[in-house]
Amino acid sequence: MTVTAHHPGTHTAATDFSVFQDLESEVRSYCRKFPIVFHRAKGAELHGEDGRVFIDFFCGAGTLNYGHNNDFIKRRLTEYLAADGIVHGLDMHTVAKREFLNTFAEVVLRPRDLDYKIQFCGPTGTDAVEAALKLARKATGRTGVVAFTGAYHGMSRGSLAVTGSRRARRAGGIGPSDVTFVPYEDSPQGTFDSVGYLERLLADPSSGFEIPAAVIVEPMQMEGGIYPASPDWLRSLRALTERHGILLIFDEIQAGCGRTGTFFCFEHAGVVPDMVTVSKSIGGYGLPLSLTLFRRDLDVWEPGEHTGTFRGNQLAFVAATAALDLWRQTKFHTDLAVASRRLDRFRTELLDPAIVTRGRGMALGIDLAGAGGPERADLVQRHAFEHGLIVELCGRHDEVIKVLPPLTIDIARLDRGLDVLRDALHSTRNR
Amino acid sequence: MTVTAHHPGTHTAATDFSVFQDLESEVRSYCRKFPIVFHRAKGAELHGEDGRVFIDFFCGAGTLNYGHNNDFIKRRLTEYLAADGIVHGLDMHTVAKREFLNTFAEVVLRPRDLDYKIQFCGPTGTDAVEAALKLARKATGRTGVVAFTGAYHGMSRGSLAVTGSRRARRAGGIGPSDVTFVPYEDSPQGTFDSVGYLERLLADPSSGFEIPAAVIVEPMQMEGGIYPASPDWLRSLRALTERHGILLIFDEIQAGCGRTGTFFCFEHAGVVPDMVTVSKSIGGYGLPLSLTLFRRDLDVWEPGEHTGTFRGNQLAFVAATAALDLWRQTKFHTDLAVASRRLDRFRTELLDPAIVTRGRGMALGIDLAGAGGPERADLVQRHAFEHGLIVELCGRHDEVIKVLPPLTIDIARLDRGLDVLRDALHSTRNR
Amino acid sequence: MTVTAHHPGTHTAATDFSVFQDLESEVRSYCRKFPIVFHRAKGAELHGEDGRVFIDFFCGAGTLNYGHNNDFIKRRLTEYLAADGIVHGLDMHTVAKREFLNTFAEVVLRPRDLDYKIQFCGPTGTDAVEAALKLARKATGRTGVVAFTGAYHGMSRGSLAVTGSRRARRAGGIGPSDVTFVPYEDSPQGTFDSVGYLERLLADPSSGFEIPAAVIVEPMQMEGGIYPASPDWLRSLRALTERHGILLIFDEIQAGCGRTGTFFCFEHAGVVPDMVTVSKSIGGYGLPLSLTLFRRDLDVWEPGEHTGTFRGNQLAFVAATAALDLWRQTKFHTDLAVASRRLDRFRTELLDPAIVTRGRGMALGIDLAGAGGPERADLVQRHAFEHGLIVELCGRHDEVIKVLPPLTIDIARLDRGLDVLRDALHSTRNR
Amino acid sequence: MTVTAHHPGTHTAATDFSVFQDLESEVRSYCRKFPIVFHRAKGAELHGEDGRVFIDFFCGAGTLNYGHNNDFIKRRLTEYLAADGIVHGLDMHTVAKREFLNTFAEVVLRPRDLDYKIQFCGPTGTDAVEAALKLARKATGRTGVVAFTGAYHGMSRGSLAVTGSRRARRAGGIGPSDVTFVPYEDSPQGTFDSVGYLERLLADPSSGFEIPAAVIVEPMQMEGGIYPASPDWLRSLRALTERHGILLIFDEIQAGCGRTGTFFCFEHAGVVPDMVTVSKSIGGYGLPLSLTLFRRDLDVWEPGEHTGTFRGNQLAFVAATAALDLWRQTKFHTDLAVASRRLDRFRTELLDPAIVTRGRGMALGIDLAGAGGPERADLVQRHAFEHGLIVELCGRHDEVIKVLPPLTIDIARLDRGLDVLRDALHSTRNR
Repeated sequence: MTVTAHHPGTHTAATDFSVFQDLESEVRSYCRKFPIVFHRAKGAELHGEDGRVFIDFFCGAGTLNYGHNNDFIKRRLTEYLAADGIVHGLDMHTVAKREFLNTFAEVVLRPRDLDYKIQFCGPTGTDAVEAALKLARKATGRTGVVAFTGAYHGMSRGSLAVTGSRRARRAGGIGPSDVTFVPYEDSPQGTFDSVGYLERLLADPSSGFEIPAAVIVEPMQMEGGIYPASPDWLRSLRALTERHGILLIFDEIQAGCGRTGTFFCFEHAGVVPDMVTVSKSIGGYGLPLSLTLFRRDLDVWEPGEHTGTFRGNQLAFVAATAALDLWRQTKFHTDLAVASRRLDRFRTELLDPAIVTRGRGMALGIDLAGAGGPERADLVQRHAFEHGLIVELCGRHDEVIKVLPPLTIDIARLDRGLDVLRDALHSTRNR
Repeated sequence: MTVTAHHPGTHTAATDFSVFQDLESEVRSYCRKFPIVFHRAKGAELHGEDGRVFIDFFCGAGTLNYGHNNDFIKRRLTEYLAADGIVHGLDMHTVAKREFLNTFAEVVLRPRDLDYKIQFCGPTGTDAVEAALKLARKATGRTGVVAFTGAYHGMSRGSLAVTGSRRARRAGGIGPSDVTFVPYEDSPQGTFDSVGYLERLLADPSSGFEIPAAVIVEPMQMEGGIYPASPDWLRSLRALTERHGILLIFDEIQAGCGRTGTFFCFEHAGVVPDMVTVSKSIGGYGLPLSLTLFRRDLDVWEPGEHTGTFRGNQLAFVAATAALDLWRQTKFHTDLAVASRRLDRFRTELLDPAIVTRGRGMALGIDLAGAGGPERADLVQRHAFEHGLIVELCGRHDEVIKVLPPLTIDIARLDRGLDVLRDALHSTRNR
Repeated sequence: MTVTAHHPGTHTAATDFSVFQDLESEVRSYCRKFPIVFHRAKGAELHGEDGRVFIDFFCGAGTLNYGHNNDFIKRRLTEYLAADGIVHGLDMHTVAKREFLNTFAEVVLRPRDLDYKIQFCGPTGTDAVEAALKLARKATGRTGVVAFTGAYHGMSRGSLAVTGSRRARRAGGIGPSDVTFVPYEDSPQGTFDSVGYLERLLADPSSGFEIPAAVIVEPMQMEGGIYPASPDWLRSLRALTERHGILLIFDEIQAGCGRTGTFFCFEHAGVVPDMVTVSKSIGGYGLPLSLTLFRRDLDVWEPGEHTGTFRGNQLAFVAATAALDLWRQTKFHTDLAVASRRLDRFRTELLDPAIVTRGRGMALGIDLAGAGGPERADLVQRHAFEHGLIVELCGRHDEVIKVLPPLTIDIARLDRGLDVLRDALHSTRNR
Repeated sequence: MTVTAHHPGTHTAATDFSVFQDLESEVRSYCRKFPIVFHRAKGAELHGEDGRVFIDFFCGAGTLNYGHNNDFIKRRLTEYLAADGIVHGLDMHTVAKREFLNTFAEVVLRPRDLDYKIQFCGPTGTDAVEAALKLARKATGRTGVVAFTGAYHGMSRGSLAVTGSRRARRAGGIGPSDVTFVPYEDSPQGTFDSVGYLERLLADPSSGFEIPAAVIVEPMQMEGGIYPASPDWLRSLRALTERHGILLIFDEIQAGCGRTGTFFCFEHAGVVPDMVTVSKSIGGYGLPLSLTLFRRDLDVWEPGEHTGTFRGNQLAFVAATAALDLWRQTKFHTDLAVASRRLDRFRTELLDPAIVTRGRGMALGIDLAGAGGPERADLVQRHAFEHGLIVELCGRHDEVIKVLPPLTIDIARLDRGLDVLRDALHSTRNR
């Protein structure tokens, strides 16, 4: 198959996608929306094989918070490879791991008074969630888990069981299980007193509901449609779970690592969860890594009870240590504050009362449910792509435009991207 | 804590492990057996920070079939990074992915007449298994799965449900589920007519057993204790599953990618499974990657039904393409044949009738169940470590020594490693 | 063990309970509250072996709506036995069954325009629920079921799964399953918009909630604490389930067969469920019988798909036919109306604002949650027993006095029983 | 619909079945095979409304071991009803229950040294099984149960989960659960070393199989096709379960109460199970009753943890006490021995090597699997019915004729019935 795309300012290319179509499973998704073959990337920009250049407001769904192929991180990786630093070491002691551990403790844990142990899971977000749920069940001796409507926690069987999407659940053959779903604070169906509801179930000895091992929640739902939970809601959830001896797990896989302005998204609520899962942007270079963090006293694992071949990804450690060195630079935060304000201004200037926006820091959701719906969102995405901007959709029906620029984007490119987006919204207004 | 290790020919070092003990979860395992901090690696050798050098007969449990930091692969990776090749691209079309697809088709699929589609799962073996089981259930509309005693398929909830280990299952809170376990062809409890047993259950309408979606099996059980299935058994399993319309999944994660002499371990039986999972040594450089392969007509996935942030690991694609370029060199196979024969000779020369050996190609299990048991195996491992050799244990009680040298090991180092191993067995004989 | 009980107007007896204590399981419950050996019964009265006589406001938890050993029914039973009418016939055609079917159609189904098929389950309420849930799952091809907090549907595994009590569930090893619990309209935790909540879950494609096969509900919760659902709530539940193609099952096992004034409790709401379960008082003589009724088009059973040895209890058919002959007598309903009004008057005269009463027809709950709680309820029950009245408790913590006189009770005995009850409430006021 | 049946020696009747067809669910089964309306019964004979008389070799699937409407039992029932003995009493202390308990202890438990506690379940066999499984799980704190291929234990969800029939399981929506099925000692697929197989699973820590709470087994499978377990097999099962601390439950619901010559079928093996379920013929008059018996130390029930409206069926107690009084008469056993020998002689005289017979005492299975199969069995049953004999089929495909005459049948009627059966087999020989 040959797709012809027009791109302003570059040549027009006829690209051959047949090898992907012939050999790769029908499960592939993003590539269907962005009909181009990429070959290089730098900072906020993606380069197509055909010469086209795109500003990236998607960033690997939050994996590239420091931009593509960040030079500071890249230098460290290149040196490590050149020196034949150990690349694969399972969970052996290595120099790279030690440096990461020390840096993570110094930059992330200690300044926040978080007395967590760190588990290196299989290098995927879903495995961090699997480990957290396993450990919560083991530590409490209970089996139930509470999750929220709209939740996305991953695609392996344990994580999918706490993920709300009916479509994904059906594809995975997930039946009803030991997971109880409760409406999130906010959703397309409106707000809900989730904590009051849980209290009601817990208080009633005939509710058919057992005290669960854990409540797992994204402090800001990303795939669900960019719904940030309020500090009050997170605090009352923390109080409820403490009152009943239930572990509270925050899934920070997409919203964490600086995306919302603080390292963890939950920091703004001033609460401390019992467990945290992080992954995508720990290193920020796109190298697989994930962590499950938990209160020291919950570390009841026996050696090897949760393992995985790639759980100690040394190159990703090197990248992560470098990324944290970036994070502690003052300039990084000054620049980030400027970019965040620019994104905020864009949001306030949208001025269409039918469009709802939600977000925090460098994460913005533009909800078109009441202003054209998924059809318009699709057109916005296509329009943006045709004009050199990559944005992704989210929400129950892909009706929300998800704006995730690199945290490190320069203001000029940010503005150019926002201009394209504004134009895309404008030109699809009457659709 | 400080551990003092004596190593012949190098200086004695007092190493500080406190940061690992303080910050890393108790789940860590291998590092407890090998009290050293590694920092460099090359070919068949691992270098400790303290100057000690070890021959590696463990190879990341089969992840490093081409040895550590293989120069051929390394050059490609370094060039790619230098050129700012795209490192993180989700499942977008990329040049690196296209090259891998073309090479994999040319080197692996077409010569074996395998008309498979390829799915890039989350870059862990367990995720490849999760995807295979999901797809098998979706494609058949059934839920049950048959797995085997002694099986190891991974640690996420879906994979753990088909893994035999009672200890791992308990840690994961895995109860009885839609998985039926049947004894493998061989085991510490002796051989079993697994296929006849399954036929009995399937034939009896009152057996309480539903026709399952799939049978999942390792053509050679590795963690279970190095049990290679016979060609006859695999063929009759293939015949049974075909007769009843059950999908046959071969898990080649540890035994595949050349470990047994052929690219897939199942090739020696002359059967073609409906699905295959591969992971560890696709690239052989230690970079996370996994594939689920399946018959073209089984590709009933809808876009995005199984996803994951790191599922298109571009660096691993680059490494994998390079590794396959190595695989197609004649010299690689000539050298491999020589090494395999040397390993076979070692095996036949063991001469202790109480020691049972099993294996194929460059995988050897030395079963001490009747010759000292787990206690002796532990001593062998320690003795080897003290004399500069890394070997791992497997089996129900860690009573089997698992010998997995790099496929590319030079004969001198192979012999040196085998000498240490022979000496370790000898010196523990009366324990 | 010997218990000495004082009973006004009769002699004092020392009864020997040792055979029960020695041979009968610890699971026995009611006999612990009523330390006496009964031997005869008639109408509203129970006779102890020791000569004491009790007014029965418990009536076998609604099994004896026509009083003990009702003479009209008794004559029919005696004649049938004398004539060697068939007593056990599985599900064969019998004269007794035909007469019951004809009478049930004439007295119950046709006057209410209910075009139901009738299934004779195993002669227990729980088996009627099991059959209803099975058929709902089979007819819809779905597995999920919605049940309500406070619900009681029986003790076999399928029924227990839709029963709310945490204690009963734990005893039965019932884990989370394909049942979703939702708060009932009213409960000790206050009222709840159950239908709005269900609509929210159904409308949200990411709610983690699948469209269920059925909603099962008691139109009046009895064991839960005598909570009658409002007509509005039942109507909106009917509308919701119709809108989404979900089957609506009314469990009328305790509240049906005339207890609330109409034959079915749900009649007052003017809705027609898809399935109904009835049991206890079909025959009203205490002989085991249960029915599952369902819409004609739902009768997708294959022969024998739900069976049971005692499912065609012929003696119970004879009693049931006689009971329905009683039910169609005008005098029966005139008397019942008088008795119901007397019970209502008692309720309005209680005059203690801290005591909450709920009920309908000849079912009254006196909720002492805010007026002494379970401790006082226990004292009330003991005081009543000592003064010749049997009443039972219900509610989450046995804090509700459950008043279920025979529908056929004469006013004199009703008044005498209510006097004892009033006195019991009065004398425990300051406890 | 009108069916015309010809019956030798009686008039021909056109019977109207329309009311059953119109009102009763399609789930009805036996009545389809026996197109007649019964109205009276006595001893070994059933009387149709049309005057036809049948010898009953079915006996309510073992419910009528003392024949229909046994006069000895009937007199007690009639007197009890006349005296207004209490008919419904939940689990209160009653005179009828005390008499039953004393008699059961004296006639059944003490002579066999069985120190069991007695639980009165809901009056169905399936409820006795539900209670046994619940208690086994509660007492051991484990969840798994082992059951056998070919097993029938009832139709409620817990019992169905241990029942083998794929058809019944599918109708009930029973998926794989915490039940592991293992082949019974004998089956249409041949014999199997079930105990060796279980030992293998238990011994292997990687078998994917947890130590179960209980093994539930019929000492003689009835519905499965009349397969008596050998004493050796039962003894080795007892030894295995003791060795591993697993509870052994014998389901004696169909084979118990004298059917095999001893009161319990398991007596011939000389083993003592931890729990026993009995039901059908405790009273033998067709009145619903069931018991769960268990070792005294297993009685860990809390009051009311397993309940049911009809669990104390007083009339059935009266019948059961009478039945046990019959059982202790010498003449009863002398007559039974004569009848059993007659049945044995019939069996040995069948002389067709293609016909396999199995059985014990007054239970005989005639397996036509190799001699005409289900088609011939159906013809045999029809032929018998046309000639005045009721027999039922069993086995995986209804290929086994199940012969269950009353234990009290006179030799003349037994011979007449066997003559009809012999003739039916003969006349269908070439089908």
